[in-house]
Formats: sequence, structure tokens, C-alpha cells
Amino acid sequence: MIASSSTRPRVVIVGCGFGGLEATRRLARADVEITLIDRTNHHLFQPLLYQVATAGLAAPAISAPIRHILREQIRKGRLTVLKGEVTGLDATTREVLLSDGARIPYDHLIVATGATHSYFGRDDWAPVAPGLKTLADAFELRNRVLNAFEQAERYPEDRHDWLTFAVIGGGPTGVEMAGTMAEIAHHTLHDEYRRIDSRQARVVLIEGSDRVLGAYPADLSAKAQRQLERLGVEVHTGCRVTEIDPQGVTAQCRSGAPDSPPQPYRLNTRTVVWAAGVAASPLGKVLQAAVGATLDRAGRVVVEPDLSLAGHPEIYVVGDLAAAKSYPKGEGEPTPVPGVSPSAKQMGRRAAANILRRLRGEPTLPFHYIDYGSLATIGRKAAVAQVELPLIGEVRFSGFFAWLFWLFVHVYFLIGFRNRLMVMTDWAWAYFTFQRNARVVVETRPKPPAAEPGLEPRHD
Amino acid sequence: MIASSSTRPRVVIVGCGFGGLEATRRLARADVEITLIDRTNHHLFQPLLYQVATAGLAAPAISAPIRHILREQIRKGRLTVLKGEVTGLDATTREVLLSDGARIPYDHLIVATGATHSYFGRDDWAPVAPGLKTLADAFELRNRVLNAFEQAERYPEDRHDWLTFAVIGGGPTGVEMAGTMAEIAHHTLHDEYRRIDSRQARVVLIEGSDRVLGAYPADLSAKAQRQLERLGVEVHTGCRVTEIDPQGVTAQCRSGAPDSPPQPYRLNTRTVVWAAGVAASPLGKVLQAAVGATLDRAGRVVVEPDLSLAGHPEIYVVGDLAAAKSYPKGEGEPTPVPGVSPSAKQMGRRAAANILRRLRGEPTLPFHYIDYGSLATIGRKAAVAQVELPLIGEVRFSGFFAWLFWLFVHVYFLIGFRNRLMVMTDWAWAYFTFQRNARVVVETRPKPPAAEPGLEPRHD
Repeated sequence: MIASSSTRPRVVIVGCGFGGLEATRRLARADVEITLIDRTNHHLFQPLLYQVATAGLAAPAISAPIRHILREQIRKGRLTVLKGEVTGLDATTREVLLSDGARIPYDHLIVATGATHSYFGRDDWAPVAPGLKTLADAFELRNRVLNAFEQAERYPEDRHDWLTFAVIGGGPTGVEMAGTMAEIAHHTLHDEYRRIDSRQARVVLIEGSDRVLGAYPADLSAKAQRQLERLGVEVHTGCRVTEIDPQGVTAQCRSGAPDSPPQPYRLNTRTVVWAAGVAASPLGKVLQAAVGATLDRAGRVVVEPDLSLAGHPEIYVVGDLAAAKSYPKGEGEPTPVPGVSPSAKQMGRRAAANILRRLRGEPTLPFHYIDYGSLATIGRKAAVAQVELPLIGEVRFSGFFAWLFWLFVHVYFLIGFRNRLMVMTDWAWAYFTFQRNARVVVETRPKPPAAEPGLEPRHD
Repeated sequence: MIASSSTRPRVVIVGCGFGGLEATRRLARADVEITLIDRTNHHLFQPLLYQVATAGLAAPAISAPIRHILREQIRKGRLTVLKGEVTGLDATTREVLLSDGARIPYDHLIVATGATHSYFGRDDWAPVAPGLKTLADAFELRNRVLNAFEQAERYPEDRHDWLTFAVIGGGPTGVEMAGTMAEIAHHTLHDEYRRIDSRQARVVLIEGSDRVLGAYPADLSAKAQRQLERLGVEVHTGCRVTEIDPQGVTAQCRSGAPDSPPQPYRLNTRTVVWAAGVAASPLGKVLQAAVGATLDRAGRVVVEPDLSLAGHPEIYVVGDLAAAKSYPKGEGEPTPVPGVSPSAKQMGRRAAANILRRLRGEPTLPFHYIDYGSLATIGRKAAVAQVELPLIGEVRFSGFFAWLFWLFVHVYFLIGFRNRLMVMTDWAWAYFTFQRNARVVVETRPKPPAAEPGLEPRHD
């Protein structure tokens, strides 16, 4: 059914995030038969997902239908896009297995299914502390945050708990969520309640290590923390969360001296955002079972310098799922690659180019990551940036100018001119009016029985 | 807890649709204490809901947070907005009962909870043939329609069933849905599939009576049907649906002569939209149980000329929930009021004014409906209009000019300048490019256990 009658080499790409999309675009220029498989119908611009979760942007502004993005390539007759869930791999017959039983044959395979959030073995925390990886996650968080203010107005005797918001994890997502939630409480919702003052809301950021944005230089971490505090966020570093329940968060916190014994800490809150752990997609385990791929501690697949699997030069892993290293062009040791969208894109391009090299009988090339710098936003007019400039080298800056730079970079890379225009309009509006336009709570209805097993919604 | 300490007359308004919002605005100018209760946090511009269901608009474009719309009134200190679900009424103590056990006292009550869809006793059809009343409904339909094309591409052997779309009911919603779905199939998705041609999709509109838009003059019905057919919709009038199952729709259809015996008709389809029946909100039954209100056949509450309940001059029912009549200013018999947004608004204003008249000791006035005409859109560049102009009288027109007029009227009445701007931009874009911007399928996740019973999502 799915078999292609073409005699072109067949490349199957699993996942249409930054890595999979980039690989597809590159390969579509060559004479190969591509099948792109994704669980959803859209490519998601994940760096702005927190804006959907905090009611700043509507979902369509940061997501574009895969078929529409790739319509030129589909029209050329060498690309098939399938909405489906990959659940297995048969390395002997070289087939990808879908949840509905379909088998998609490949000559070359690129797995780019990214990462999901990890609760470090405490999956029972998921219902009380949802994370942020998909649009459904973003809607869930948006509903919870907006509902918390409604509940506080409704039950003034519980308002302290309803108006306390905990963000677990001080990485980029945690910092963005905390800063934006403080902005909502202090500006957006101000004056819209009768019994509560939304400005009394507390946003508490809890981080296990001794600083936020641990992947950044220490001076930028310190600046980020100061900017968060200026926005009204309480930052608790050195706090290890030991329990999350519907009434709040329990932690052990070191205060002051690094060798002081940790003190118990309890925060009563009804709204917890999980931004602490990232785990590789379950496809890593599928590769382990099927071809004996090695996984690292985070479940990521260890790859060869050219991003293929050891012993399986026809299988590539790119993006957040890959434990990849960057090999310098000249001398020097390989360095680890950060889990950011530019590295996923660059890996997608490298894997595609290596497949084409193998088809031409040329040796594959190792992956070399070009680091353009790091950017994290904190909230309105606040961000930190570390940029690698040619000739000049590394430049670090923070505050309003870093925020403008962040805005420009993100809107520039958003897919599709129209989305860029809409996002700019939304942000200009939000900036001048303090209003957020996507403050709509849509409660999901219990799913009616699907017409067909294949229609059942799937999540992991 | 909810009791107000003020000595102002207490008005409780249930439902923030067109009627409830208009009543709130009018009453907020007077010295009364208002409590506005709604199940959701947003006012929904229902006339454009089909655009969300057909991926033309994002949900935030047609929904505005109630608190934000009414923030000036909240700030004045005489309006409380509550997100909650009314489940009962105690007419002796004059209290509204909420699902969480709260009791809200009133001196005057306006019930404006509108309508929901009715399956005429066949509620088992709901899972296979969802209707369109809420944003959650719109997301469900959007997912189903877009998924159907994905399934057709995925299972080409079943593509005829997947590419057949049935719309049950030829009223305004059915006509809008059918016309727009045809547009999606023939233009928006064209060229984005490899194994199917989206233009082969069939959109079938099934109507029980002998013409579409039965509330319109016969010549406009005929024009609407011709415009639908030009867009590629198959229109079957005189067809009574007898069964809907996951594989299709069964009906009895009269062909040709009105007295010819009905013939069995079967349509194999995986996607059915229910646009046939409207039933009054369950609050009608609450009023029946609490104060013995009379309900008509559709479950609507029979009201006095001034929109209050017989024997309960302190309770008003407005909008789609009211079986109201319009009393002419001069001579003449009262006439029924159509279930459209202008009539809901006018009833909301009349009920508010009558409450204020009673407070001043003046007699209440009967409701007089001012009919500005009717407008229904069919799809791109197609609509029918019947407008009442001062001096000139009734004017009927159809086609492109009617569509432009429809666009202008709807954008004009959309709440909030920014939404108007965004909707105009979206439509201008959609018009010139044939693209639809909200083609995102978000599958709902199974709801995690709520932190608190009050957080449980509620639907009926």
C-alpha cells in the first residue's frame, strides 16, 4: 500500500521539527524518494511555544501545516508526507513500523523526533505539574494559569494558594514562563478583578543548581536573575524538589554557603509548571531494541561523527534525540552540541548531505556545529544574549537591547511571511497596550469514540 | 462568601453571549450591583465560529476575555464577573445555585444562556456527527475535517469515504460549513497531497425541508443553492436522516414531486457535521422546575411581553432561550422573533431597561424587535442578503456584493478594534492566496486529575 514503485533511493524521515524539516528540504533537491512521517500535521516553532502557554500568541501563529510548507516539494512528485506514529523498526527488512500496522520501506533513514519532558522517574507529578513541549501542553498551561485567577476571585479565602505560581527549573523555558507569568499578573490582568488584586500574585522560580540559565556564562545568569527579580519573580536557586502535590511543592534548599545543610522548603500553590527535565523521544529506545543503538544517560542516541549509527551507516539520528559531538574543522577535540534549534537544523542538513555523499560513493563528513550564540528572553524588555560575531568574537549583552535582538531573531526565523507579520502585529499590540490576545480558555471535552482506530489521539 | 455588603439592588445575569453582555453594559451605567456568571472566560462571536471550525481564523480572533471587555465596568466597583456553572435556582430565597454549591442572591435575574444543538432524541449520533456551538466544538470539527484528508492520503483504498463530507441541515450554519469545506477541498489543500486529489472531495448538504435557508424568502433560498452548487456542494433537499453511523448517513429522500414516496438514500462518509437542530439551554428546565416556567416545544421559555416570567416579574429570559414575541409600536399582532444575534442584543437591552423602570416605579415596556434584515454567507464571494432600509423598505441581493456586505457587517460587529484588524488581515490574506491560516490539528490529551473538584471541565 505504502510501497513506492519508483526506483529512486528511498529516504524516510521521522519527525518534522527543525532537524527533520531541514533534512527534507535539502534532500528534496536531489533525485531521491522521500517519505516524511510526523505525528501531527504541523511544524511547530517551539522557541515561541511559551507565548502560546502565556496567552500572548494564538496557536496558528507559531505552527504551519507541514504540507503547506513543503507544497512545492510535494508537487515535484518526490515527497510523501504521512501523519502517523512510528512505533518500531525492522532493521533486517529496512522498514519503519507505524502504530496502525503499516510498514514503510527505506534505504536511508533519518530519525529526528526530538525530546519530551522528563520527571526523573516521578511521572506521577505529570498531572499536577505539566510541562511544555506541544501545543496541547501550551493550551493546558494557558487554561491552568487563567483559571487560577478565576478561582482566586471565586474563593477569596484560598486566594493566596491560587495566586501563587511555581515554575520548576531555571533553564530557558522556566525563565521565559516565570517572567511572562509575572508580566500577566502585574500588567495584563490588573484591574479586571473585584475581590483580588492580580498584582499580589507570586511567581516563584525553583532551580536545583546554584544559578538560572546554567548553560550561559555566570555573569549572564546573574543578570537574568536580576531581571527576573525586577519583573517580580522570586528566584530560589539550590532547591531540590522532593515532592509535588495538588496543594504545593516541597523542596530541600541550600541557603547562602554552598556547604550549609539543606533546609526544608514548602510552597503552597495550585499551579505548577514543569520546566526542569528533558528526556529524549521514545524513538531512542526503538533504535536500541532494533539495531542495538547506545543511549546516553538522558536516553539520547550516541552517533558516529557523521551522525549515523555505528554499524548502520544507513540510519542517522539528528536534533535533540542525538548525543552528537561537533568536530572542529581544524585541530582540536570534539565538543558537545547544545540542544537548540540551530544545532537541530545544522544536523538535519549534515545528515541529508551525508546521504547524498554516500549515494555518490563519496565518504561522509563529520558534523561541525557553527555556534551563532545563545539568546534567552526573560519577559517584557528583558533578555540575555551571547553572540559569536565573525572577527570580533564573543559579545555578551542583556536588557532591552538583548530583548529587541531576541524579538528580531525569533520573528525572522518563524516560518512563513504571514506568520511573521501577524506575530509582529501581536507583539507590537501587546507591547503598547500590555494586553495579551489569546486569553481564551477552551476546556477539552471528553473524546467521543473515534470512527476508526487510526483516528484515536496518541500521546506519550 | 459571595454575598455583597452593598445596599444597591442586586442584578444577577447568567450567560455572557450577545444578550447577557448587552444587558450588563446597559445596567452598569445605573446604580445597581451586578453579578455576571458564565461557564467560560470569554465572550464568543458565534456568527464566525464556522471560520474557526474550517481553519480560517484562530480562536482568539473571535473570542474576547469577558473581564477585558468589561474592565471599565469592573473598575467602577459595581460589577462582579464569575466563572461558574448555574445548576439551580431557589425562587423563595431568590438565589442562583452554582455547581460548586455557592448561592448567589439576586433581586433581579436575567437568564441568557442561549441554545445548544439538539439531535431530536438521537443523542447517540453526537459522537459521529458533532455540532458547532462552542470553541471546543469548532476545534473538534477542524481536527476531523483536516484529519479526513490525511487519512485519505494514508489509506488510498478508503479515499472515497474519507473524501466525502456530509453536512446535516441547510440553515445558515450548514450552508456556511458546506460552502467553506468545498472551498478548502478545491483551493486550499489542492496540490498538497501525493496520492489523492483533494479536489475530488464531495461535500454533501442534506436538508429535511424542500429548500436551504428556510427562514429566507424562496428566491434567496434558490440563489443560495445555486451558489453552493457552483462552489461544488451537492445539495439534497427533502431528505430526512434516519441513521448516522461511523461509516455514513442513511436518509429517506423525496425526489421531484412533493407527493412522490420517499426513496432510501445512503451516503458513505467518515465526516459528518451536525447543523440540523437547535435546543434551548438546560437552564430552561431549571426555570421550569424552580418557578413553573412554561417551555415551548424547542425547550424555550415562554415570556411575557416585557420578557419577564409570568408571576415572576423579577426574572427575565432573553436571547435564544426565550420564546419571545415582538410587539409592534402601533397596531398589529405580535410576531415571533428570529434566533439571531441582533434579537439577543435587543432583548438584553429591553430586559435591562425594564429592570431599571421597575426600580423607578415605572411600568415595564413590551419588547419590540427591530429587524435590520438577514444575511447568510455561503463561501468565497457568495452570500445572500435581505435588508430592511428606512424609507426604501426591503432589499434583497446575493452574490459578491452580498458577500462584501456580509464581511463588512461581521467585522464591524466583532468585539474589539484589534480583533477587527486581525480578522481583516486574515481574510485579505485568505482571499488573495486561497490559504487558511489556522490549519493546526491539536489532539486533546486525556485530562489529568484536576487539583480540585471545581476545576473539572464541564460540558453539556
